[in-house]
Amino acid sequence: MQPSLTVVPPRSGAAFTLAPGDRLMVVDIEGGQVSDVVFFNRHDVEEYVSNGRTIDYASKIKFSNGDELWSNRSNIMAKIVEDTVGVHDFLLTPCSLEMFRLLYPREEPHRGCHGNLASALAPYGVSPDRIPVAFNAFMNVPVDGVSGKLSVEPPLSKAGDSIVFEAKMDLVGALTACSAPLSNGGSFKPIGFSILPAGCEPDDETDSGSAI
Amino acid sequence: MQPSLTVVPPRSGAAFTLAPGDRLMVVDIEGGQVSDVVFFNRHDVEEYVSNGRTIDYASKIKFSNGDELWSNRSNIMAKIVEDTVGVHDFLLTPCSLEMFRLLYPREEPHRGCHGNLASALAPYGVSPDRIPVAFNAFMNVPVDGVSGKLSVEPPLSKAGDSIVFEAKMDLVGALTACSAPLSNGGSFKPIGFSILPAGCEPDDETDSGSAI
Repeated sequence: MQPSLTVVPPRSGAAFTLAPGDRLMVVDIEGGQVSDVVFFNRHDVEEYVSNGRTIDYASKIKFSNGDELWSNRSNIMAKIVEDTVGVHDFLLTPCSLEMFRLLYPREEPHRGCHGNLASALAPYGVSPDRIPVAFNAFMNVPVDGVSGKLSVEPPLSKAGDSIVFEAKMDLVGALTACSAPLSNGGSFKPIGFSILPAGCEPDDETDSGSAI
Repeated sequence: MQPSLTVVPPRSGAAFTLAPGDRLMVVDIEGGQVSDVVFFNRHDVEEYVSNGRTIDYASKIKFSNGDELWSNRSNIMAKIVEDTVGVHDFLLTPCSLEMFRLLYPREEPHRGCHGNLASALAPYGVSPDRIPVAFNAFMNVPVDGVSGKLSVEPPLSKAGDSIVFEAKMDLVGALTACSAPLSNGGSFKPIGFSILPAGCEPDDETDSGSAI
């Protein structure tokens, strides 16, 4: 079967649930757009995706196809099973109202990815303070290993690029079309996502339609 | 005045409170020993030190003298005001029972810095799931900016080396003498700390005694 694509409008967010084996495909519809992605244990949202545990167990700060995302309780929450870009960030926090005031003082403050994730996740009992560092799909943050300095550069993703996460436990997830000017090359575009239930193959020969 | 030094025994932890302007000195008494340091808002422990916000606002992953540590709510919690080493880590999560089982399967599992921090912070209402990525004082984690790979190397700190944090709000803090073999060059040593109240100078001419 071929899943339908849900469109997350620019500077907004959405939440969803995943069962083990379900696949979440995040699509950069127009190209050059970041999507902040977070996961929680569906049965206990005190367990959340942890960049620190993931970095520790993988001994690296860059993640792509084949890498697993770990929780604060050292359980595997999801695995990256497809990735057409290979450049993402897992260091920086979701942009927020306070971040806009600090980093973009000349712009009208926006609630940012943090506000959008918090709003989408509120029905699942996740409070704003519980939003962790997100997996920032398509975000391009080169790090200089010698100086330790980093920069936020335009994403390398082109229209139709995607990354696919396979759930390894019952999850509540949320994602955004990121709201920070610097992260998205200065413009705001939508993000698409689709959820393929466990057992279904996205490129099943019985359906050759496009994912978009 | 010259503050006394509290000794945190090997593989253990301690908690404390700080008022704005108070200075926390963390001392590597014997050298080559990591100390995981965390901070919370004393009046609302849902506000905690955030490596993601700190990395974002500083645009770097390495921190030393003059750098500020930010909270998840984008407030400055503390500032590094002295540092005789200059090499610390702010990427990796505190070692934990689960981490020991995964990374050190041949050793008797230890509750690690996570367990020690959780135990020390329990009286302040901090639950184990709320322990964030710690500021890992003296931890030596070189990162390859190109590949994204990192390694955990022996600390560069020598006996008597120290780092000093100045509180910028009412804080509950905790620190450890880290329990992970790899982080500490294969042996476990104590960590010292002292708290100098706001308004007191550590090198006041009326008292020339050693801090240790």
